[in-house]
Amino acid sequence: MLNADSSAGDQGTSIDPRAAYFELLGRDTDSAARLGHLHTPHGRVDTPAFMPVGTQGTVKGLTVDHLQSTGAQMILGNTYHLALRPGSARVARLGGLHRFMLWDGPILTDSGGFQIFSLAERAKITEQAATFRSHIDGSLLELSPERAIQIQEDLGSDVAMVLDHVVALPSEPQLVREAMDRSLRWAERCLKVAQRPEQAKFAIVQGGLDEELRVDHAQRLSQFPFDGFAVGGLSVGEPPEEMVRILSATTPHLPVDKPRYLMGVGRPIDILEAVARGIDMFDCVMPTRNARNALAFTWSGTIRLRNAKHADDARPLDETCPCLACKHSRAYLRHLFIAGEMLGPILLTHHNLTFYQQLMLAIRAHIAAGDYAQWLQSLKVQSDLLG
Amino acid sequence: MLNADSSAGDQGTSIDPRAAYFELLGRDTDSAARLGHLHTPHGRVDTPAFMPVGTQGTVKGLTVDHLQSTGAQMILGNTYHLALRPGSARVARLGGLHRFMLWDGPILTDSGGFQIFSLAERAKITEQAATFRSHIDGSLLELSPERAIQIQEDLGSDVAMVLDHVVALPSEPQLVREAMDRSLRWAERCLKVAQRPEQAKFAIVQGGLDEELRVDHAQRLSQFPFDGFAVGGLSVGEPPEEMVRILSATTPHLPVDKPRYLMGVGRPIDILEAVARGIDMFDCVMPTRNARNALAFTWSGTIRLRNAKHADDARPLDETCPCLACKHSRAYLRHLFIAGEMLGPILLTHHNLTFYQQLMLAIRAHIAAGDYAQWLQSLKVQSDLLG
Repeated sequence: MLNADSSAGDQGTSIDPRAAYFELLGRDTDSAARLGHLHTPHGRVDTPAFMPVGTQGTVKGLTVDHLQSTGAQMILGNTYHLALRPGSARVARLGGLHRFMLWDGPILTDSGGFQIFSLAERAKITEQAATFRSHIDGSLLELSPERAIQIQEDLGSDVAMVLDHVVALPSEPQLVREAMDRSLRWAERCLKVAQRPEQAKFAIVQGGLDEELRVDHAQRLSQFPFDGFAVGGLSVGEPPEEMVRILSATTPHLPVDKPRYLMGVGRPIDILEAVARGIDMFDCVMPTRNARNALAFTWSGTIRLRNAKHADDARPLDETCPCLACKHSRAYLRHLFIAGEMLGPILLTHHNLTFYQQLMLAIRAHIAAGDYAQWLQSLKVQSDLLG
Repeated sequence: MLNADSSAGDQGTSIDPRAAYFELLGRDTDSAARLGHLHTPHGRVDTPAFMPVGTQGTVKGLTVDHLQSTGAQMILGNTYHLALRPGSARVARLGGLHRFMLWDGPILTDSGGFQIFSLAERAKITEQAATFRSHIDGSLLELSPERAIQIQEDLGSDVAMVLDHVVALPSEPQLVREAMDRSLRWAERCLKVAQRPEQAKFAIVQGGLDEELRVDHAQRLSQFPFDGFAVGGLSVGEPPEEMVRILSATTPHLPVDKPRYLMGVGRPIDILEAVARGIDMFDCVMPTRNARNALAFTWSGTIRLRNAKHADDARPLDETCPCLACKHSRAYLRHLFIAGEMLGPILLTHHNLTFYQQLMLAIRAHIAAGDYAQWLQSLKVQSDLLG
């Protein structure tokens, strides 16, 4: 399906009718870092890329004009949440998720697989489907691979994820293998049922912390015509060095000409290390959720704005940051949080997402310059960023 | 002090060093409605004007770029709240309220007098001062006329209000008269202690629902060199027609060449009626507070967005409204409120404030055209706006 023409028209716009495809532009000399373009029906994404999380049809606290001004090119929406509220059929009737939220850039939707993990006590898994009891009203939502694709086709995202079975780590080897095997069968069912050729389908590699399982899953998934490959089931409680170990083992077994997406990660250092292992795409709630808790990311480390030491500080969070928050003093930002004003989370969300985009910009610049590995090393030695 | 030159420099900027002054541009033929310019050190305000309320150094939910894009020219800050948190001396150290919140247009600060009414159970009044027990931490705040001015000079607002004694309505005639007399003495003390000639001082007419008291107070205050005159102590629970009656009795006794400000009002119909009685300036939390409760103002009346009938409505709130919310469907806006997303209050605040500014624009256009009274009459007959 990659780069294939398609006669299926999208809903009345002049978008590129092909599914998202990847263009590999270059590689770092001393690491597996890659520079690329992800082309989608709603425009191009420079990779490595970070996707802000817009769970319920909005990146919390930001209007789309402000979201765009952070530099974000692609965002993520959540299938489970949108299926429950406002309902994917409703979103489809209203013209799809892009039109619903007025984000006209690329959107990736997850499949709900992560909620099998995060809402485990509300979910039951069979070979047929995951069944959730809604966190909103207790009603039942059955999420089969077929239903996960249908919801994502209703939403009209540029990239749909296959339904996968995510387990907590560590877990019994047998459980990890079963979930991995099921994820493979579910991935096939997703491919089989998909109706919208302009929507890219990404597979998800599972296998817990077992390198052999990961390699096995990556190799088996690679035999199918997926448009991209995600590494899932990480950043679920395991130590960061375990995640890096699994990435190092997995990415060499993924097709070089397809984009690789590390789901739900995360901290700046994790992103930097994952890029060095050949990851192209990221999403995480960290910049947005932390912003609402008054924690700012900067190149000099994190800043807790509720701390009293900022009460009279006339300096911005970061002299060089182009965001809306950095026009203000730390004293003002602190005041907003202490006074419980919405503008605190709004401004800090804009700052943190801008920081993450600036981080990705720097990453891409260093890959382009061929010195990514050295730069990462120097960051580890010199910078507070990773502390 | 009106229009007088002043040798007192402002804090290092090139702002107009004169206190705010009023330029009367025209009057309606068949009502007392007036068209004017309020000139301030931070720019000109077209009157009749509506000032959004920015209690704690922010208009809740809006960045300053979004606030500006509503069309707002002047905003209000609250002395009581800012004195408690973050403290006016701190705001002064950080360069004043304009710089603190990065609003470079005119700011009017109230005096805390309204909190004598609204926080009555936490306040004690003597001839010397009102003493509040903080609603935040229970600490004591003494607000004398002198202190109210000092705080406002710390904040550096363009227009400072004198401290007044606001009582609930109805109240015993004796209590209303005492509060009015005290407000007069306090107003004199405010004038006497003021140190910043570039900051305009507005007096506040009290007198409850007693026309004689109102006229008496207006006439006595008019003998002092205030830069403007407010009508206070209204919209505190009395029927709207009582407010209109008091305005009709009061404004003829205020200097024609000074701006008149009706404090804390209010509903679109109240603003329209007050303009017809010669009021030039307004402030109210109604558009912002209602926005956070999912109530939208439109020319066709109010819309309760939580109502299920909007769930599939692809129409905007108002086809002609230039705000950020009206790019979206009602269905999307409703979803945001139902899902508890911050973006709901943000977008609706932008809408309601834009609506209020469009209302003021229409008011000014009809005064300029000389048909304000007729237009108001036709609105009452034809429009749902006032329903």
